[in-house]
Amino acid sequence: MFSKVAIVGLGLIGSSIARGLKARGLSATVTGYDGSADVRTRARDLGFCDAIAETPQQAVEDAELVLVAVPVGAMADAVTSLASHLADGAVVTDVGGVKTAVIEKILAELPGHVAFVPGHPIAGTEHSGPEAGFAELFEGRWCILTPCERTTETSLAKVTAMWSGLGSHVETMTPEHHDIVLAITSHVPHLIAYNIVGTAADLEEVTQSEVIKFSAGGFRDFTRIAASDPVMWRDVFLNNKEAVLEMLGRFTEDLAALQRMIRWDDGKALEDLFTRTRTIRRGIIDAGQDTADADFGRPHGHED
Amino acid sequence: MFSKVAIVGLGLIGSSIARGLKARGLSATVTGYDGSADVRTRARDLGFCDAIAETPQQAVEDAELVLVAVPVGAMADAVTSLASHLADGAVVTDVGGVKTAVIEKILAELPGHVAFVPGHPIAGTEHSGPEAGFAELFEGRWCILTPCERTTETSLAKVTAMWSGLGSHVETMTPEHHDIVLAITSHVPHLIAYNIVGTAADLEEVTQSEVIKFSAGGFRDFTRIAASDPVMWRDVFLNNKEAVLEMLGRFTEDLAALQRMIRWDDGKALEDLFTRTRTIRRGIIDAGQDTADADFGRPHGHED
Repeated sequence: MFSKVAIVGLGLIGSSIARGLKARGLSATVTGYDGSADVRTRARDLGFCDAIAETPQQAVEDAELVLVAVPVGAMADAVTSLASHLADGAVVTDVGGVKTAVIEKILAELPGHVAFVPGHPIAGTEHSGPEAGFAELFEGRWCILTPCERTTETSLAKVTAMWSGLGSHVETMTPEHHDIVLAITSHVPHLIAYNIVGTAADLEEVTQSEVIKFSAGGFRDFTRIAASDPVMWRDVFLNNKEAVLEMLGRFTEDLAALQRMIRWDDGKALEDLFTRTRTIRRGIIDAGQDTADADFGRPHGHED
Repeated sequence: MFSKVAIVGLGLIGSSIARGLKARGLSATVTGYDGSADVRTRARDLGFCDAIAETPQQAVEDAELVLVAVPVGAMADAVTSLASHLADGAVVTDVGGVKTAVIEKILAELPGHVAFVPGHPIAGTEHSGPEAGFAELFEGRWCILTPCERTTETSLAKVTAMWSGLGSHVETMTPEHHDIVLAITSHVPHLIAYNIVGTAADLEEVTQSEVIKFSAGGFRDFTRIAASDPVMWRDVFLNNKEAVLEMLGRFTEDLAALQRMIRWDDGKALEDLFTRTRTIRRGIIDAGQDTADADFGRPHGHED
């Protein structure tokens, strides 16, 4: 499919793409680069790229497709560092969890002879770094592309083909709509998970050891999400401020209503809400976006 | 260990206890009863009890240990219905997720010749009903016992032995402390999961289909918790009102602070919080209360 793909940023997402491209034979050469010398060494040892470049310029030379997989806040610098070495006709794409702000930053840095296809794979785990990646991460998941003024028909087709090749379903929408959809399906859920874990950590009446021991009551699910990469998530919130604050406002409003139902013993309203939320779970399972197994299929029973 | 255990309420928890007692040979006879005729029929077909009684009175006859596993709001009626048929020296225990309110209700109904050991296994899944139970549910999990004025040394030892026999770690504490600990480790997490799923369902800018397709960004974890038994959870919130409202107040306060960090671009404070919450996850994994596998060990890759 491609002669050379360059991947800048070799964390969970970048390294999973590299592994997927090689596993499925989608690119003759995959060259990687990461801003951290330590990550470059580890990536070299792991061997999921054909070559690890020592500079971003070297990585993108002659690449047909350049994939920038760094935290949203580092995107502009990453693009600046490689812009002057991009081949004629190269296509640049990214995987940032926020689109409007990122597009603005990248367009300001990008030379005129390259196309840009903003993208965002809706996949990931709570683990970070090049060791955490795996080739199947994107299989059966959705990837959203949000074409902008620098997206050509050919470049959109190439990036679509890459994601389909990795096993993803591809959908296009405007950057603005992406940012609202993700605010409710991803950003606010992360925010409230980080928040409840913080609240629990600060309690004086309940010890940390109690929180840990009795977490199987529900809390432990939130700790998984609240173990996601801190820098990546800091950047998402700062760059999707408007949509996150809007969705958070709705969440808080609804929570106040729920709090009132409890205070005034409105059992019927509680039961109605709790019954309604069950059907959304069913939709997610039917769409193949989660397992129907109890507890996500977590192991039960003694490990010892 | 026991000659006869009676289990009243054959949902996820009651049926798992029955299966565990039989699998580990902890009771010569296990007799079950459920208020729903349909559940009694299904339980008979599933065969996890030695006998399914047609009345609660019949179920508890000659039972050494009587386990009441019904939603918190149905506890008083369940105990009233069987109280007059309890054997001399029988021990009654429960599995309710709230302790202070439940103890008060049960003590009002209980005859003088039986002991009562309030209990709460910190285990469960989002699935409900007798088909959802399994013998290993309590292995490696904690069970909290909250002795009250009707708990004798012998009865406490018997109930402790039963839970240890099922593979659980047992801890005792006051009912009041239990209700605070569970408010933060279980009740408020469920409340905010129900709430965010409700918020997402009500949006007009984002369709239900988009919420479902892009749920892998984090939202789908919340839908699992928000698919838990509606009646059980309604009763928990109404019966642990004070502790839930207190913990919810702290959560909301902290969320307002987090919202302010985003509005004022306080990247350092965000990153600090997100880094701090990672360590709690580590503690839960080290304590054997969750898997270290990415995404809870969920299957990745194509199902087709």
